[in-house]
Amino acid sequence: MKEQIPELDSHFLKKGHETYLRHISVDCVIFGFHENELKVLLLKWKKGPWCLPGGFVRREESLQDSATRTLQERTGLKNIFLQQFHAFGDPQREKKKSEINHDQKGGWLQERFVTIGYYALVEFSYVKPLPDALSETCEWCDLNEIPTLIMDHRQILEKALEALRLHINYHPVGYNLLPNRFTMPQLQKLYETILGKKLDRRNFQRKMLAYQILKRLKERKHGVAYKSPYLYSFDLQKYHTALKEGLKGGW
Amino acid sequence: MKEQIPELDSHFLKKGHETYLRHISVDCVIFGFHENELKVLLLKWKKGPWCLPGGFVRREESLQDSATRTLQERTGLKNIFLQQFHAFGDPQREKKKSEINHDQKGGWLQERFVTIGYYALVEFSYVKPLPDALSETCEWCDLNEIPTLIMDHRQILEKALEALRLHINYHPVGYNLLPNRFTMPQLQKLYETILGKKLDRRNFQRKMLAYQILKRLKERKHGVAYKSPYLYSFDLQKYHTALKEGLKGGW
Repeated sequence: MKEQIPELDSHFLKKGHETYLRHISVDCVIFGFHENELKVLLLKWKKGPWCLPGGFVRREESLQDSATRTLQERTGLKNIFLQQFHAFGDPQREKKKSEINHDQKGGWLQERFVTIGYYALVEFSYVKPLPDALSETCEWCDLNEIPTLIMDHRQILEKALEALRLHINYHPVGYNLLPNRFTMPQLQKLYETILGKKLDRRNFQRKMLAYQILKRLKERKHGVAYKSPYLYSFDLQKYHTALKEGLKGGW
Repeated sequence: MKEQIPELDSHFLKKGHETYLRHISVDCVIFGFHENELKVLLLKWKKGPWCLPGGFVRREESLQDSATRTLQERTGLKNIFLQQFHAFGDPQREKKKSEINHDQKGGWLQERFVTIGYYALVEFSYVKPLPDALSETCEWCDLNEIPTLIMDHRQILEKALEALRLHINYHPVGYNLLPNRFTMPQLQKLYETILGKKLDRRNFQRKMLAYQILKRLKERKHGVAYKSPYLYSFDLQKYHTALKEGLKGGW
């Protein structure tokens, strides 16, 4: 006997469009950073393919609220600030939808969907993802070992990574990802991990300091062989201003 | 007798959702640059309010194609590369929709729409906008003198301007907006106009040259009182590479 998946009951399949908007979905790309590794959170449907956590937009709900709720319902993750980055609306993206066996032909779920992509970057040791009833697993996957994903989810993931990499050119990153006090090499390593490339040490330091979001602490890091490196922390007031207004150093 | 507007005929009002996706629209913010002025293209509905040129997505059409077609149908503008920048999905954005008198209550047009925003930056003397049958005028409006716009179109316009200003931090701009040969002050003036602020001359020149998208020409500009300034042109191969891959000078 086929297992009954609660959310995909026949009422949802037939009448879901009375609760949710037709043709619109949201998908979330959650990047996790921990000890110089970057991962992404994926769900695996029961006896089905891997996908990004996603869902639908209630008729009275904003896109942002829908993405936040969807992420929480499907993975258990709360209080994550999601950044909208792109709407995916190629009519061909539906062609592979039959991979998800919805049983119901001709229903609202079989129609074309435009999906709005959201991403976030979190410290993955702080969050404990849990799969929902639809999924057999919810896991952090290494960016270099992404399994085959449904529909255009691979493309959505790549576009999110591109958006994140652009984002860190004009917005600060690091708070909640690094310890409260960190060295310049630790911060550089974070940028290198996100960007997937090595950076020049001097240029990095010069640019970071020009942003004026760091405080150099009096105490240095101990227990290091030769010269003790400076410790820094974020100047949170300036950090949050830069989050809103962009980093100094643009035009 | 009320004028019959062709596109808003009763078939469209009642059955438009058979041709177009429900709940999804596109809106285009077309910035025009000419002689150090930045303007935006607006339509005025017949006996109605001002709005951005926008429309709906055909069932077999990509979002991008829909935005391009819509812009052409409503303003006559062709071959404009539109850049998607944000999806607007606040359920409150519909509350003011009654401003547009659609006659038909309860139809698909009365339902909630999520709109996908696209923008472009063009030389406005090259394009001749023409209003469609729905509109009494289609005009370039000064950014400092924007009339009251329907729904959340003012917010969409402001978000587009923000996106354009971020965009020029990591992508080249200027080809098709400046003459083939231009001086550094002309290029700086373009950036200043888009950004709405003065820039430091030396910093500007240093950063622009570091991007490696300019060729300095042998010939200088004549007819200038004291020192003849250098003339530049874009190195189109490098310019197009930078359009795709981003400018040097990021991380």
